Amino acid sequence: MRIDLPIDKMPTAWFNALPRLPEPMQPPLHPGTNQPIGPADLAPLFPMGLIEQEVSGALTIDIPGEVIDVLRLWRPTPLVRATRLERALGTPARIYFKDESVSPAGSHKPNTAVPQAYYNAKEGVHRLTTETGAGQWGTALSFACAQFDIDCKVYMVRASFDSKPYRRMMMETWGAECVPSPVADPTSPGSLGLAISDAVADAAQRDDSHYSLGSVLNHVLLHQTIIGLEAKEQLAIAGESHPDVIIASCGGGSNLGGIALPFLEDARVRLLAVEPASCATLTTGEFRYDFGDTAGMTPLLPMYTLGKDFMPAPIHAGGLRYHGDAPIISLLVQCGRMEAVAYPQSKTFEAAVQFARVEGKLAAPETGHAIRAAIDEALACKETGEEKVILFNYSGHGFLDLAAYDAFNHHRLID
Amino acid sequence: MRIDLPIDKMPTAWFNALPRLPEPMQPPLHPGTNQPIGPADLAPLFPMGLIEQEVSGALTIDIPGEVIDVLRLWRPTPLVRATRLERALGTPARIYFKDESVSPAGSHKPNTAVPQAYYNAKEGVHRLTTETGAGQWGTALSFACAQFDIDCKVYMVRASFDSKPYRRMMMETWGAECVPSPVADPTSPGSLGLAISDAVADAAQRDDSHYSLGSVLNHVLLHQTIIGLEAKEQLAIAGESHPDVIIASCGGGSNLGGIALPFLEDARVRLLAVEPASCATLTTGEFRYDFGDTAGMTPLLPMYTLGKDFMPAPIHAGGLRYHGDAPIISLLVQCGRMEAVAYPQSKTFEAAVQFARVEGKLAAPETGHAIRAAIDEALACKETGEEKVILFNYSGHGFLDLAAYDAFNHHRLID
Repeated sequence: MRIDLPIDKMPTAWFNALPRLPEPMQPPLHPGTNQPIGPADLAPLFPMGLIEQEVSGALTIDIPGEVIDVLRLWRPTPLVRATRLERALGTPARIYFKDESVSPAGSHKPNTAVPQAYYNAKEGVHRLTTETGAGQWGTALSFACAQFDIDCKVYMVRASFDSKPYRRMMMETWGAECVPSPVADPTSPGSLGLAISDAVADAAQRDDSHYSLGSVLNHVLLHQTIIGLEAKEQLAIAGESHPDVIIASCGGGSNLGGIALPFLEDARVRLLAVEPASCATLTTGEFRYDFGDTAGMTPLLPMYTLGKDFMPAPIHAGGLRYHGDAPIISLLVQCGRMEAVAYPQSKTFEAAVQFARVEGKLAAPETGHAIRAAIDEALACKETGEEKVILFNYSGHGFLDLAAYDAFNHHRLID
Repeated sequence: MRIDLPIDKMPTAWFNALPRLPEPMQPPLHPGTNQPIGPADLAPLFPMGLIEQEVSGALTIDIPGEVIDVLRLWRPTPLVRATRLERALGTPARIYFKDESVSPAGSHKPNTAVPQAYYNAKEGVHRLTTETGAGQWGTALSFACAQFDIDCKVYMVRASFDSKPYRRMMMETWGAECVPSPVADPTSPGSLGLAISDAVADAAQRDDSHYSLGSVLNHVLLHQTIIGLEAKEQLAIAGESHPDVIIASCGGGSNLGGIALPFLEDARVRLLAVEPASCATLTTGEFRYDFGDTAGMTPLLPMYTLGKDFMPAPIHAGGLRYHGDAPIISLLVQCGRMEAVAYPQSKTFEAAVQFARVEGKLAAPETGHAIRAAIDEALACKETGEEKVILFNYSGHGFLDLAAYDAFNHHRLID
């Protein structure tokens, strides 16, 4: 059962978590000096509009009209009560999911790609560079750049570039250029950390170019809060006073932050991050300053990390293969406001296939992590008899990840 | 700008075109005797619920509650005004599209797959067979069978089975079995006509099995009329009294019939079928009785046909590669109520890429045909200054057809 939000009720301001965090956040440090960085340090890579958002103390930040115009191509997204899944599980819990898969690129990523392209275009930047792992972020930014007539160059992790050509084809259809990374070593399968280094180096050495990051940073999570803001209104339409638990997969933290942060100040709501056991940053990593990339070119961020040289196993949920985590998410986990759990990928595909058969929808492997945890919460309710309200983020579809389903269906999936 | 229909406004009855046709339809003939067939002739293949709909004279037919329950997983679908496309074209026309790509299988096909599975399950049938070309129909029926606990076996045209494994993987994820056709000749690339023969033969020789067809037949077009019924209500919400022209691609005729038939009796509304130049059934075929399949096992249908042995060129719009057309559509074209136009595939991809860059959405190659014609109508309005209302059916997404976009983007597409 779908709960639609009328299009004129789409939020017109983002929710800023920064002034509402339970503890103050430590500043990012300059990679050369180890001193706190200021706006001027970021100016070669980002437009001032985004730099201001990165450190803003405002409780909310208005969404520009031109951004709303583009977001309305697919927003508000549906909130769906998964009644057929509830019935199949025999749970007294009420399970809702927010369907971010309906965007042009098929995930939540365009929510931030669009404002990022907009603020760059507004400040006269004509070219953006970025990296992408499995390709979700690269396609999102390619789409967004097409809306504001900006050139876009995407450095794609070579292993994905070679094995998953469909995302590259999407980027090219929207007019972007996509090349395999690392550029300097054609024999390397690459990694997200290495691709970030390539994209940052490109933008840093060209006057006409900026760099764009699809997760981790404060302004990215800010843009994603439209997910949780809409969900809050839709739950009210459905007659729910609040969710008991909010669940999302966590790679860099943007889809999780997007759905969870607007509920940050409501102590009745548990927040749960789900990560892959093979890249369990929040559950097994260390909280300390670390680089966002492998080459050590980015600022040092206060976050949970497995170390910038950590090379995650080649699981299908490419979007969750990252050594670090958003500083906002890391702080919430460290101070106990947010929980985290990790699953091996076979358990997540088991849940995704169960979900597909009853609800019809084929989830991205990343999203399968959230589905796994949501099903486990619902099964726990079956034991206790609790009628909990479970909300999870359906962050993306799996139409371009069918080879992973094929491996699972034919017992070729390795944990 | 999206126009949502509230979920409680979803139609609860289908629109039956049969009693409203401008001329009476000639009956289907038995392939052995050449005599009109009766319900008993169809009983080995179809449940009585569908056979009755195939010949019903009722003006509307109620949608069963259990079917509505499943359709509500994705319906009502959005109607979208393509304002960014209008702006890019500089047209005074208002362009609307009905977005059928949001279904689990990614096209309009589940609209009929679900009731077909339901009526079979209700009459105790535990197994369905069908054929599929590029795979849209096979995935739709696999999804539908999963909802009603029916086994499903799909005979897929071998050329597609080998070159497009993703659709097979989707079917298997929903629990169906998918095999290449023709079964008897592993060296043949196959065709839709041959695959129909395989699926019909399988169902005919097993007591526990029925056959299911994804287009052409009257009951299939009946089920698809929910598209046009919803669109009519949504246009009213948008303040439009009626569309001036309705456009849809035409292979067997089901997505076209679905959006167009509910407007059949409104003489203000032009109806336009769009077909590929390489399989131009309506624009270059002959109106006569012909078989639906290649082996000559199906009833003879009164329709436009290129001949049952016609082998269409391997264009990317696999769903439009069919030698015949729905008898309802054929009759409407023959008596002048519906127009038809044909395009080479390069022109349709040109339109689909233009659409993707401004509206964000990646269309199926079949849908690209409708987009091409809609753009051409809008450009004609630019010449004449007419503020026409153009409605087209966005019948499916192209996430599993990116290789076709790649061929177009890199100038490897052959007409």
